[in-house]
Amino acid sequence: MKREEQSVTALVRDGADLIFIRQYREPVGATVIQLPGGGVEEGETLEAACRRELSEETGLTCGRLIYLGSLYAASWLCNEITHVFYSDEVIRQGVQTLMAHEEEIEIIRVPVTESLDAIRDGRIRDSELCCAVLQALLRGLIP
Amino acid sequence: MKREEQSVTALVRDGADLIFIRQYREPVGATVIQLPGGGVEEGETLEAACRRELSEETGLTCGRLIYLGSLYAASWLCNEITHVFYSDEVIRQGVQTLMAHEEEIEIIRVPVTESLDAIRDGRIRDSELCCAVLQALLRGLIP
Repeated sequence: MKREEQSVTALVRDGADLIFIRQYREPVGATVIQLPGGGVEEGETLEAACRRELSEETGLTCGRLIYLGSLYAASWLCNEITHVFYSDEVIRQGVQTLMAHEEEIEIIRVPVTESLDAIRDGRIRDSELCCAVLQALLRGLIP
Repeated sequence: MKREEQSVTALVRDGADLIFIRQYREPVGATVIQLPGGGVEEGETLEAACRRELSEETGLTCGRLIYLGSLYAASWLCNEITHVFYSDEVIRQGVQTLMAHEEEIEIIRVPVTESLDAIRDGRIRDSELCCAVLQALLRGLIP
């Protein structure tokens, strides 16, 4: 079996809001609303990678992270597997520490109900974000 | 703006069952449960492409197709945009007409409740399938 490329994303709920990022994605030529996340580094656990990416991209520190499972973003194209975590325990809002290629990551807070509306009407159409929301809905973590 | 690579997928409900396909996906080195679908050909409408792919991969002919929206499978990696259709009108079950590279597509019927369980526990983890199910849930098309 092939070794998969591992990445992590975090669906964070802070009270009534979900926390997303907005960034320009060159391959699609558009600004896309997504979850904070990124690649797992050598020797890093999935949860540690998730906390690191969350901190770098949003400045957030969370308490308990709940593992929601994994997904194939594009199994017909790449060997990437994305692990999805959820937290509703925002402990601290620090500052972003972005890498050079992440210079333009905007943090947005979207109420849960508006997030679902935005998915339904296509303003949000990122696969990882939608998969994470589905997992959270199926577990009753978001109303 | 870049020209996007267009593809289509179909979430089909036949009574209490959802109809999926199962095929080996070389990039992830695993057999993956997905929706029937594929690329849009030159000059083809999205709906026509969806009906063609559905017929080729499953032998199914459906009545009304409802457009559920589109998603970026992997906007950080490729310019593919996937358009998702839904139908609960199965008119005819014919035979598959697979291309050489699709020789091993198995058609499976999974009750809706079991499908949701399989997503929750990770047996189903294809991004397009999960996004389609989320859209159908948000619209009340599946219970």
